[in-house]
Amino acid sequence: MTDLVLKTRHENGRIDLTLNRPDKFNALSEALLAALGSELARIAADPGARVVVLSGAGKAFCAGHDLAEMQADRRLDAYRRLFSACTEVMEAIAALPVPVIARIHGVATAAGCQLVGACDLAVASETARFAVSGINVGLFCSTPAVELSRNVPAKRAFEMLVTGKFIGARTASDWGLVNTVAAPEALDSAVDDLAATILAKSPDAIRRGKALFHAQRERPRAEAYALACEVMAQNMMDENTDEGITAFLEKRPPVWR
Amino acid sequence: MTDLVLKTRHENGRIDLTLNRPDKFNALSEALLAALGSELARIAADPGARVVVLSGAGKAFCAGHDLAEMQADRRLDAYRRLFSACTEVMEAIAALPVPVIARIHGVATAAGCQLVGACDLAVASETARFAVSGINVGLFCSTPAVELSRNVPAKRAFEMLVTGKFIGARTASDWGLVNTVAAPEALDSAVDDLAATILAKSPDAIRRGKALFHAQRERPRAEAYALACEVMAQNMMDENTDEGITAFLEKRPPVWR
Amino acid sequence: MTDLVLKTRHENGRIDLTLNRPDKFNALSEALLAALGSELARIAADPGARVVVLSGAGKAFCAGHDLAEMQADRRLDAYRRLFSACTEVMEAIAALPVPVIARIHGVATAAGCQLVGACDLAVASETARFAVSGINVGLFCSTPAVELSRNVPAKRAFEMLVTGKFIGARTASDWGLVNTVAAPEALDSAVDDLAATILAKSPDAIRRGKALFHAQRERPRAEAYALACEVMAQNMMDENTDEGITAFLEKRPPVWR
Repeated sequence: MTDLVLKTRHENGRIDLTLNRPDKFNALSEALLAALGSELARIAADPGARVVVLSGAGKAFCAGHDLAEMQADRRLDAYRRLFSACTEVMEAIAALPVPVIARIHGVATAAGCQLVGACDLAVASETARFAVSGINVGLFCSTPAVELSRNVPAKRAFEMLVTGKFIGARTASDWGLVNTVAAPEALDSAVDDLAATILAKSPDAIRRGKALFHAQRERPRAEAYALACEVMAQNMMDENTDEGITAFLEKRPPVWR
Repeated sequence: MTDLVLKTRHENGRIDLTLNRPDKFNALSEALLAALGSELARIAADPGARVVVLSGAGKAFCAGHDLAEMQADRRLDAYRRLFSACTEVMEAIAALPVPVIARIHGVATAAGCQLVGACDLAVASETARFAVSGINVGLFCSTPAVELSRNVPAKRAFEMLVTGKFIGARTASDWGLVNTVAAPEALDSAVDDLAATILAKSPDAIRRGKALFHAQRERPRAEAYALACEVMAQNMMDENTDEGITAFLEKRPPVWR
Repeated sequence: MTDLVLKTRHENGRIDLTLNRPDKFNALSEALLAALGSELARIAADPGARVVVLSGAGKAFCAGHDLAEMQADRRLDAYRRLFSACTEVMEAIAALPVPVIARIHGVATAAGCQLVGACDLAVASETARFAVSGINVGLFCSTPAVELSRNVPAKRAFEMLVTGKFIGARTASDWGLVNTVAAPEALDSAVDDLAATILAKSPDAIRRGKALFHAQRERPRAEAYALACEVMAQNMMDENTDEGITAFLEKRPPVWR
């Protein structure tokens, strides 16, 4: 049996995960969601993990849920379990202690577009296209709407959701769904550059920062500040931060532990 | 007496509402707000309604509140009632079971700009202009600020509110207040295209989706996901969704009930 | 001893504050934060204050916290006090009864970039550059993240925070961190124009509006509307608003008290 998610763990703590159902445009079957969830759980428990790159094998990034599988068992409880399982994966990405970069080379639709939204960062090829297209089969992309409306302005999100229309990589970048757009042949080097930039930082600071960023984001400003003050004070006590500031004051590069 | 809001109900479920005080730039008098509220209540109770297009008669889209009327009765309680009545109309648009498209051909100021923000979608002519201009008469656009700050970035919203300055349709689109900008002679076809796209979808999915979109939007992410999962599971049980997915798997167009 | 914050109070109610540690790129030492906090408290109690312009002396706008000072006393409690003091200043800007315009002519990094976010409005020279660069010394910009993520889209904010990379003034404007970009020689006139526009409005309406804008911003829509309705009704009872609307109806300029 083929692995539904391929994993490559580099020496430097970069971990590449590849959705691997290319003949199904990497549709998120229950088995694929379970495999992705397992890999994320393993990374969460891996103290040497530093950054994750999420890609899709074959032509598409991810075409969303597996409609054939969903249609084969039309019971409300089955759907509740499926969408909960999908939500757990999306929440696991946000809860992961290290940043997750989506590498989008092709189509990202429905829950595939949601995946892009759930990742911390996104690098897209000029050939990438994005849609929340469930509406075309009578299924409003409700769970993708959660991520989409937290990434792009309200009227843009609503338009995509009720029309199902595709947007290109440049538009996705203009609207805030994607950080960087690269020519197809430069996609991997753009991803490598971003990953390398993160790998060059203090791991403690990145881990503290990602958790804080998500924790503070939807709280009232005063609560957000209370959290941020405490995280930042604790961050100051890290050995790496002592080294980082000392190195800065001595005008030399830091050496992280 | 002339109708303050004109209504055209098309066979296909599209309903056109036109603010009809052209000599007053469609200022939102108490009577006009009441008329608009009544039409919205009727549409909310109309199971055949599918999409609403909101326009203004004459030169302007809507110039906001009726200052002459407001000045004629300078009592705090009267103002409280007026702004509550206006808020009820704005909330009725968000609560309407079907999408509302604003069609903006001219000036949209103060509560007229707020109306644009309150609509789910907005199509503007290149000749449209937007301002929250109450500040010019000493009246900060407080209720418009609620919609504006939920559509455009914070510093943009604040700038518009304290300067009262006009922005053009392209800028409104760049900032997220408007979805589409069309040449004046192409405005109606742009609105028709957007309405037709929505009319081609499953009515159940659109209704479920609009309600979910607004319900999840300002909630914490975890609550938003819980709501979205349940809506999406229920949506899967709709007959139209069964048809939509079956049609997709059979590579034919769906036939909605 | 040199003043750490220079203050110029103009006759018309405009107050210019200048961070004045040019040799330290206006780093926010404890003493400078205390001085800035004191000036803000004085302005908050000044009924004639109308608008504040915040600048930096020398080459930079503000380079964030004073790392040398922080490194000299590596105790958790000292850091907690420092970040709380910094947060109090940021919150004092939002709580100030009058708008604060950041005038950014050079580098704004870390807590300097946070300052820009905390201000109501920002005018930048083409030579301005922005970064949340604490990550380069192992200190994630947690408190700057609170402001940054409330000004720019989530993926943009996260990217800046984990990469520490600089963005230019045009990009800062595209992303919503800055309102206006001017050529270096036109920076002061752009700031003057914006301040003059605000000074030309009714002071009551500006004060009511700024408070309402921040109070409603992070509340649920229904609560935001309830607040806004009451503020707007009270605003209608102001003498200046009576004058403003009367002047408008009489087609003459208003004369504010």
